[in-house]
Amino acid sequence: MSLADSRARREGPARGRPRSEAVERSIIEGVMKLLEDGVPLADLSMERVARTAGVGKATIYRRWRDKEELFVDVLRAAEPADPELPGTSMRDDLVVMLESLRQRGLLARSSAILHNVYAQMKSSPRIWTAYHATVVEPRRRLGAEVLRRGQENGELRADLDIDFVNDLFVGPMLVRTVLRPDGDLPEELAEQIVDALLTGLRPTGP
Amino acid sequence: MSLADSRARREGPARGRPRSEAVERSIIEGVMKLLEDGVPLADLSMERVARTAGVGKATIYRRWRDKEELFVDVLRAAEPADPELPGTSMRDDLVVMLESLRQRGLLARSSAILHNVYAQMKSSPRIWTAYHATVVEPRRRLGAEVLRRGQENGELRADLDIDFVNDLFVGPMLVRTVLRPDGDLPEELAEQIVDALLTGLRPTGP
Repeated sequence: MSLADSRARREGPARGRPRSEAVERSIIEGVMKLLEDGVPLADLSMERVARTAGVGKATIYRRWRDKEELFVDVLRAAEPADPELPGTSMRDDLVVMLESLRQRGLLARSSAILHNVYAQMKSSPRIWTAYHATVVEPRRRLGAEVLRRGQENGELRADLDIDFVNDLFVGPMLVRTVLRPDGDLPEELAEQIVDALLTGLRPTGP
Repeated sequence: MSLADSRARREGPARGRPRSEAVERSIIEGVMKLLEDGVPLADLSMERVARTAGVGKATIYRRWRDKEELFVDVLRAAEPADPELPGTSMRDDLVVMLESLRQRGLLARSSAILHNVYAQMKSSPRIWTAYHATVVEPRRRLGAEVLRRGQENGELRADLDIDFVNDLFVGPMLVRTVLRPDGDLPEELAEQIVDALLTGLRPTGP
């Protein structure tokens, strides 16, 4: 599946005329190609994007107000789609969510976009904020819902703050994917994290 | 305590002649001042560092082979000193270690050096690698020792991999300090993380 396919999938049914959607895709794919070729974010002008996609600047500005808005869509397209939660238990949902973070981490190691752009994004607070609002926050809200269901059905201690518990689960995975780019990401990691946290790290009786 | 004091403390007794140490400190403080004034890492040439510190370039090259080596010392000086572990229990040692990460996070929010340079460092693999080897790795090894003692004295399940458990403890704190620069860092966070992980998140019997 290409990155543009992944975006199209996320967007659901085509909006507007198919022709317009095709243009949008080719612009986004053009930017991805430039980023994958190692062009720094700062060197990507709207002119250059237009030239690469073979369209006029006006065509781009009709869809995105500015460079930052376009980049957020590019980043969103580069992100893997959100996972389908099995819904069988909080434990299983958490394993699937962490597994999707692990997959995203593996993808980021092989994708120049996810790899380079994240580092650069930090120096552009606007892109960073928009990325958080459109990618990170929805993921976080989904995690909170899963945990709340767990508190309701008795799988999770009810005395703990949801945001706090969320960080306990995602923290160890993010440390290995985002903070330590050479961190070990074995297949069973998601399951190991979830089960260790649920059971606790203190030895149980003999 | 100034950042240079913190470095001097870490280094222990003065090495070489006191005069030489003073020069070293003034060079490091000069770089810190430039970084705090917002000068990007890329714009900091050895010439500029020499001019700021009021020394010749040769004086700098006598101490640091290149810019990268100098920056790692600057970063090390900007880091808070390692905490003293109480040694009363694994639990207490972990709380102190996580509390020091929390303090470091709070400091990073107010220190332009820790704040800006980390983002920039990512684009310089050499500095990043050196920083990891001299700052992050020793901290990680200390955590591993604490956990190993816990496995020996029965505070920690012996069937768990030390590196894995290390990430379970530091992950949630790093998510709030490094990945989410506006993450909530309440005073009791270190204790809450350690105790929640040791006890487990599953409800205990009625």
